[in-house]
Amino acid sequence: MTCDQLPSPALLPPGFADRLPLDAQTEANGTQALLSVFASHGYERVEPPLLEFEDTLLGGAGAALAEQAFRMMDPDTRRMMALRPDITPQVARIAATRLRDAPRPLRLSYAGQVVLVSNDIAGEDARQIAQAGIELLGPDSAEADAEVVSVVAEALGRVGVADLSFDLTMPPLVPCLIEQAGLTPAARTALMHALDRKDAAAVAEHGGVIAQTLIALLSAAGDAEQALAALGKVHLPEQARQFSDRLTATVAAIRARLPSIQITVDPVEFRGWKYHTGVCLTVYSLTTQEELGRGGRYRSNDNEPACGLTLRPGAVFRAAPPVHVAPRVYLPFGTDAAQARRLREEGHITVAALAAESDAEREARRLGCTHIARRDTLVPLVSA
Amino acid sequence: MTCDQLPSPALLPPGFADRLPLDAQTEANGTQALLSVFASHGYERVEPPLLEFEDTLLGGAGAALAEQAFRMMDPDTRRMMALRPDITPQVARIAATRLRDAPRPLRLSYAGQVVLVSNDIAGEDARQIAQAGIELLGPDSAEADAEVVSVVAEALGRVGVADLSFDLTMPPLVPCLIEQAGLTPAARTALMHALDRKDAAAVAEHGGVIAQTLIALLSAAGDAEQALAALGKVHLPEQARQFSDRLTATVAAIRARLPSIQITVDPVEFRGWKYHTGVCLTVYSLTTQEELGRGGRYRSNDNEPACGLTLRPGAVFRAAPPVHVAPRVYLPFGTDAAQARRLREEGHITVAALAAESDAEREARRLGCTHIARRDTLVPLVSA
Repeated sequence: MTCDQLPSPALLPPGFADRLPLDAQTEANGTQALLSVFASHGYERVEPPLLEFEDTLLGGAGAALAEQAFRMMDPDTRRMMALRPDITPQVARIAATRLRDAPRPLRLSYAGQVVLVSNDIAGEDARQIAQAGIELLGPDSAEADAEVVSVVAEALGRVGVADLSFDLTMPPLVPCLIEQAGLTPAARTALMHALDRKDAAAVAEHGGVIAQTLIALLSAAGDAEQALAALGKVHLPEQARQFSDRLTATVAAIRARLPSIQITVDPVEFRGWKYHTGVCLTVYSLTTQEELGRGGRYRSNDNEPACGLTLRPGAVFRAAPPVHVAPRVYLPFGTDAAQARRLREEGHITVAALAAESDAEREARRLGCTHIARRDTLVPLVSA
Repeated sequence: MTCDQLPSPALLPPGFADRLPLDAQTEANGTQALLSVFASHGYERVEPPLLEFEDTLLGGAGAALAEQAFRMMDPDTRRMMALRPDITPQVARIAATRLRDAPRPLRLSYAGQVVLVSNDIAGEDARQIAQAGIELLGPDSAEADAEVVSVVAEALGRVGVADLSFDLTMPPLVPCLIEQAGLTPAARTALMHALDRKDAAAVAEHGGVIAQTLIALLSAAGDAEQALAALGKVHLPEQARQFSDRLTATVAAIRARLPSIQITVDPVEFRGWKYHTGVCLTVYSLTTQEELGRGGRYRSNDNEPACGLTLRPGAVFRAAPPVHVAPRVYLPFGTDAAQARRLREEGHITVAALAAESDAEREARRLGCTHIARRDTLVPLVSA
């Protein structure tokens, strides 16, 4: 490669980005605020490493994400390692090993970066994504599902993201019905596609003995209370009924904690979930219409019941109101150190001169300061 | 690999670890506290990605760390990417590209994880290391060096790490003397080894015309004020004298800001620095005797003068006093939500029952709570 072919030093691989001052600060402080709400509900922080041996990282609950992981050889052990594409399976691993003897319910929280080979999940092009979330291990109950939702809603409220919709699905419900319908493989595939498109005519064509049930389920979607009333009237076989009852119980438990939050239900949706085995949750901002996070019920290592929800701080802070930026005070060369310290203690940002300046006010403006410190007083800089 | 040869799921590659609740929490909160001090002095946060194309990540200031970086192929672009072994060169890249037009002095801060192929730097076996630091780009002055030291000292004080020693070196000083001495390559190598061992006899044997100067420098090490007095008396050629004068000026500027901090100087030390071109800094805890961080003066991309210091939060929080753990309050099933919210607002951690319990106090103890919420009151749990 000759010199003029050298890539621009600002060029990053697609999907990777530099976060610049205000964004980086907002996301860091905001993530800390989310985690402090998680901690106040007893969710204790764990921090698994960025990479692990691939057979532990991508086994168990992590297997569903194996195609998403970058691999590299560890020269020490000559074994393959992988960069984590998701943190939840790591937390499940910690719960089943190092915290195997910790009392249940076990409440854990985490925040960190994940890296994907290609992002086909989040509907955006980022391949490095921040995650922040909670996992509740041990109980398998609607109350446990509802605690996860209400803690996340409180955390989002703390950072000013209050206009939320929680969308609940029950991915095992439809596969459980289809399994009992004795369809040919071709009819089954056609039916899955029809359900995915929510195409009632095609469902009628390919659905065989369960066509009418599935069509009734298709119309039992939307606002939670109406959808569950419709769902209650659908005739379901025993196992499917259990899934449907649990969905209803979870909505009721969430509603008891969050009387006015928007909840929608879609009992037919079953795609896009990796290792989940029960109620699944997606939380949206009604302001940005963007998905803020997702999660749900799964089996942790050793088959332990677990429910979690992972936020994407990148999306959360696009939906959050602009943060208050502290006044930025220029300290002319020789400003008294005690005065500077007082200003910082009062919440100001101080920007100190490092050499004598001829025109302190001009220097203050050049450095983007809003104020200048004068002896024992603070002078605001009106825009030039 | 047969089933009984499967590795334990708790087994991580050497140098990678799970951080468990109290440690993870302490480091996360503490790092946030360090960054808030940096921000209060106008150091604005940037967040470069975990990986970049290897030719941008490991070019420029990053070249010195090329052997430390894990590589992987990007299937999209078919180009090699590398996991960052250090954040400072990324910050330098951002300063020279995206923030090229931002006014100088440019003050930037960062916190994040780095990954090393093998850790021969930090004197420990960790290969994933947290970094948190500041970079001050633009000015090349003793005042700028001193600001970096004093801001880091204030940040460490904020997290309770006050018993510090800043050790200053001037790595280009000795090479500059040796270059002018006309030594044979063999004598030069022998002299370098002798200086590295601080072996005055061997320095005398291999030092040729500069032997006496180097021996005088060897004795000008230790407590800063004494060492600099000794250094002032050594006869040095012009360029070496400039390095020595700058070291003296930097110590004086630090002393003016931090009158009682321990500063040591070693004008002969020149190893262990990668891309540094002037005063280098190492900060130690006098309590744990552990290195907390290091940095110094270097040339950023486009040859811009820069000085920075990178802390290792892992070491910082081993030297910090134990954190205050909030009281952990058990909420019996059916506890009023408003009471629970009040408790959290007062700084308590609440741990909610998810099902009716037969013996709430026993359940509270089992879950490690220190208190139990009763109607409108909080009952401490005496140890059983």
